[in-house]
Amino acid sequence: MEGKHTQVLDCTIRDGGLINKHHFDHRFVREVYKAVSASGVDYIELGYRNSNKMFSPEEYGTWKFTSDEDIKKIIKGVKSTIKIAVMTDIGRVNMDDFKPAKESPVSMIRTATYVKDIDKAVYMSNHFNDLGYETAINIMAISRDSAGDELDEGLKEIEEDSRVKIVNIVDSFGHLQPRAVISLMERFKTQLKSKLVGFHAHNHLQLGFGNTIEAINHGADSVDGTVYGIGRAAGNCPLELLIGHLKHRRFEISPVLELISKEFIQLRREIEWGYIIPYAITGMLNEHPRTAMALRETKDKDNYREFYEKISSGYMD
Amino acid sequence: MEGKHTQVLDCTIRDGGLINKHHFDHRFVREVYKAVSASGVDYIELGYRNSNKMFSPEEYGTWKFTSDEDIKKIIKGVKSTIKIAVMTDIGRVNMDDFKPAKESPVSMIRTATYVKDIDKAVYMSNHFNDLGYETAINIMAISRDSAGDELDEGLKEIEEDSRVKIVNIVDSFGHLQPRAVISLMERFKTQLKSKLVGFHAHNHLQLGFGNTIEAINHGADSVDGTVYGIGRAAGNCPLELLIGHLKHRRFEISPVLELISKEFIQLRREIEWGYIIPYAITGMLNEHPRTAMALRETKDKDNYREFYEKISSGYMD
Repeated sequence: MEGKHTQVLDCTIRDGGLINKHHFDHRFVREVYKAVSASGVDYIELGYRNSNKMFSPEEYGTWKFTSDEDIKKIIKGVKSTIKIAVMTDIGRVNMDDFKPAKESPVSMIRTATYVKDIDKAVYMSNHFNDLGYETAINIMAISRDSAGDELDEGLKEIEEDSRVKIVNIVDSFGHLQPRAVISLMERFKTQLKSKLVGFHAHNHLQLGFGNTIEAINHGADSVDGTVYGIGRAAGNCPLELLIGHLKHRRFEISPVLELISKEFIQLRREIEWGYIIPYAITGMLNEHPRTAMALRETKDKDNYREFYEKISSGYMD
Repeated sequence: MEGKHTQVLDCTIRDGGLINKHHFDHRFVREVYKAVSASGVDYIELGYRNSNKMFSPEEYGTWKFTSDEDIKKIIKGVKSTIKIAVMTDIGRVNMDDFKPAKESPVSMIRTATYVKDIDKAVYMSNHFNDLGYETAINIMAISRDSAGDELDEGLKEIEEDSRVKIVNIVDSFGHLQPRAVISLMERFKTQLKSKLVGFHAHNHLQLGFGNTIEAINHGADSVDGTVYGIGRAAGNCPLELLIGHLKHRRFEISPVLELISKEFIQLRREIEWGYIIPYAITGMLNEHPRTAMALRETKDKDNYREFYEKISSGYMD
């Protein structure tokens, strides 16, 4: 059966934090941690670990920095075997913020990178491996950056020079069609013989779950989801659909359904994500959603025709 | 290129009518007709033509009956080459409601049937062919009824005894996974040598668009969509995504985007469709969405865990 060995990583707090500047309170994060743990998911990514010397802790919330101390407050007293991940960004990290893995509640560090910076991601990952962490590299904006040789060279560098466990294909723009997912899966699996390959969808064209199914059908070792699909712009592959789909072991969907009822219906009224036309438009046009995110802050937020014609012509204000 | 010859049918008013008892006013239907015509879509299905002796015109709106006279009011004065379709249901039709095609604005009559009633659908379609209409048979609830021989026998009967132009695979429960769509497409294409094969998705698991892409990639001659995905329960494949995807001829997305801004954002506040957890649950469990639709009318509408545990155990009140 496909997906027999597929692992699942929940990145609700990490990707969801991109739409509220990481201002989830501890109570909320703890509820997510409890429910996701109870569902049987393998990893939970609790935030970015960016440097508080580069970003203001007054502007950004706890989960922009995700210290070991904050993580310990979340997990204290909860019975769970889930592994904890944090994400790092190239050039936004203070390496001194990482203790050796055996002194930390964190199991895995995922480094997010564009194709052009893969060498830096390899360098950082190797440092995290030296500290004893599992590591992953997430290659972002793959629909824009996969055409040329640079990706192949980057994958070769990861294969030969890094000790990362997983390389994740990240459809940041939510642009990939199912066939493109299959083609990328095959390319990554061929070039990364010693690594696992994962997939992180975005939902701009309502293809988050469908593309994730295709990735699983074509050998994905790990896939990402978020509760109720929360995440930047249109959000991600909904975790509840993913664990409803993977029948090879006993995931529990009920804790996640209850979490949605109790927390996410109200949250969705306060901050927006999901199927929203400007995000579908940037997805179709293979663009970063930032222009659509900016539009949604203006009084023209629902003027879709004008937005489409502006960005498809290439002339933005 | 896949989809080179794929036709598109908009069923916004017909499937959307299932969530408001077909009470769209003429102004609204005319706006939809104008925008969908301008987009370059091939067919527009304006409603059911059910008998007003079997259903009360006081309870149900105009588009439950969709008379030639009402259609003429909608299209009057609008320049358009789009063809008009209506849907009929087995056993709910008065054959006297259909004039010869050359006296009617309707081009195509689609008969919706369960597998068990295919013989009746063939009988009705032949009558409509005698009147000069193009015909289609829509086979509903395919995820429930495709396992046994009965479907193959029904397809044989359609192939041998009918003059229908198109046979549509209808995923009424929104349960199909991409691979199941591919398998059904291959089965229908093999058995229906003289007919076109179409696909009508539902979006309970956010697979409406992804499954429609798979159907196109595997030879669908016709696919259905609705504006902003409106339709029963979770709704349908969004027309705007579909025409954004089909690049083989010049569809115009702008009129549909403008229509969403002007009409559908407000409408969505008044009646609900889309990604709503109880519909995802009935989709996962391969059930008709009626239990979820009933739940949404109660104060327990957002008690997802309880609903899931009740329906997955098989014990409903």
